[in-house]
Amino acid sequence: MELIFLGTSSAVHSKNRNHPGIVFKGFGEHILFDCGEATQKQMIFAQVSPMKISKIFLTHYHGDHILGLPGLIESMNFGGREKPLDIYGPKGIEKIATVVRSLSKENFKFEINYHEISEGTIIETEEYVIKSCRVRHNVESLAYSIEEIKKPKFLREKAIALDIPEGPLYGQLQDGNAVELEDGRIIQPEQVLGKERKGVKICYSGDTRLCEEMILFAKESDILIHESTYLIQDYDKAQQNAHSTTQDAAVVARDSNSKQLVLTHISTRYDEEFPIVEEAKEIFENTILAEDLMRIEIK
Amino acid sequence: MELIFLGTSSAVHSKNRNHPGIVFKGFGEHILFDCGEATQKQMIFAQVSPMKISKIFLTHYHGDHILGLPGLIESMNFGGREKPLDIYGPKGIEKIATVVRSLSKENFKFEINYHEISEGTIIETEEYVIKSCRVRHNVESLAYSIEEIKKPKFLREKAIALDIPEGPLYGQLQDGNAVELEDGRIIQPEQVLGKERKGVKICYSGDTRLCEEMILFAKESDILIHESTYLIQDYDKAQQNAHSTTQDAAVVARDSNSKQLVLTHISTRYDEEFPIVEEAKEIFENTILAEDLMRIEIK
Repeated sequence: MELIFLGTSSAVHSKNRNHPGIVFKGFGEHILFDCGEATQKQMIFAQVSPMKISKIFLTHYHGDHILGLPGLIESMNFGGREKPLDIYGPKGIEKIATVVRSLSKENFKFEINYHEISEGTIIETEEYVIKSCRVRHNVESLAYSIEEIKKPKFLREKAIALDIPEGPLYGQLQDGNAVELEDGRIIQPEQVLGKERKGVKICYSGDTRLCEEMILFAKESDILIHESTYLIQDYDKAQQNAHSTTQDAAVVARDSNSKQLVLTHISTRYDEEFPIVEEAKEIFENTILAEDLMRIEIK
Repeated sequence: MELIFLGTSSAVHSKNRNHPGIVFKGFGEHILFDCGEATQKQMIFAQVSPMKISKIFLTHYHGDHILGLPGLIESMNFGGREKPLDIYGPKGIEKIATVVRSLSKENFKFEINYHEISEGTIIETEEYVIKSCRVRHNVESLAYSIEEIKKPKFLREKAIALDIPEGPLYGQLQDGNAVELEDGRIIQPEQVLGKERKGVKICYSGDTRLCEEMILFAKESDILIHESTYLIQDYDKAQQNAHSTTQDAAVVARDSNSKQLVLTHISTRYDEEFPIVEEAKEIFENTILAEDLMRIEIK
């Protein structure tokens, strides 16, 4: 699994920070979170093919989070894409669909499915779950999490002790199904499986002020990507614009018992001389600052 | 006067070539021609402030020429712009206006005037004229020209010989107005002005196949910026997609008696090993290839 930060600025971009966009690679998929202008350009530099993006999750519809969408979709079409694309976002996604359609050169050769979602479980496969949570910005805004579903260990020695013949029965038990042996015994999966294992959990706040909902939603994240538009010196601006300070983000990381905090959505008013990470570290030590094209490998 | 090439790719962009956008600096204005995605990002690198753009001319409404517009306008708004913005383009500009409005975060603090235009003289000031011409693409498409209005030289020695007193009368004559002297004589401006002078003429094709209209429109250009999407080896594609080859562009430069040809809108299928300029030079010697962030100073 890997996270690739395509853009890490807030509303005003800079030479070094593009508008928001994060790619999650894992489970045989490339999933994009937010799609600011020039996301497709950043993809060239990050060597991520637009053709591989299977799903796009939008946190909200402010321009800095969506204006790369029409161009990205057009490039997919130019590239001859045939695979459907699923786009998820909060209330109002029909407007986005209308804009994309009205800017399109021609009929696309691939299907785009727009999903208007609220909070809850959005996707559940055998390998992962994607959930959303309403957070507190100045427009309807969602946070997202991806959690790996990790099967319990198969305890081979227990299976041998139970005289279960090696072969397909092992697989069925590992998948959580009971099996019947030739001698008539029924074996329950619990008899040969270890205890439940927690998979990797990644959480992305989108745009939000500090809120209890986000703390609950981020619970036990391995990686919490949290917006931190402002430093504490601009606390008033954060309040006014319904954004977080770096210390707000750190509070969420600490109180959700997350393992690592990645600060993103940084106001470009702060250059490298500002104590962006340092302020957060006063509250939550394991903090890093996202940079454009930064990659985090997740094991 | 200066030309700044922000983007020089055709529909598919690359690391080195952004989607189309050209800034003309002159006559106290910054005028933008076309606005592909990430134009505002290129402006950062080119050190052109979005706030200074007074007018935007769109050649046509294919995504690669317009998708930077909503973001650029939003950035102008973020920057506190109050100065009105004028946007010109062919039939269908209402659709663009609707998209920009529907993607806007809030009411803009500045006025945007959309002008749906056809061919002819679009703007005429004391200093310059901007004209448009319908060209031949697969959608309604315009080429644009800017021509400097250069006043004839004021022949001081003739004024002295005519006993015209130095002072404001000189200025009035230079502006093309007749003046009456104290002794009752009427002096016509032609008596003290040199012959008509041709100002600088810059012409930009937008997207077009080779066409007679463009040759006539580009007549005597000092700089002809012409699309040249394809090399001669892809002549069929050029025909099919209503684009020009580099040699088509060179034919326009030669037959319009232009002084310099700048090739742009280059398909990113050709890397630097392809004879892009060379093929054009077979027909028109004074040819250069536009690169992103290239600047041409015009004296």
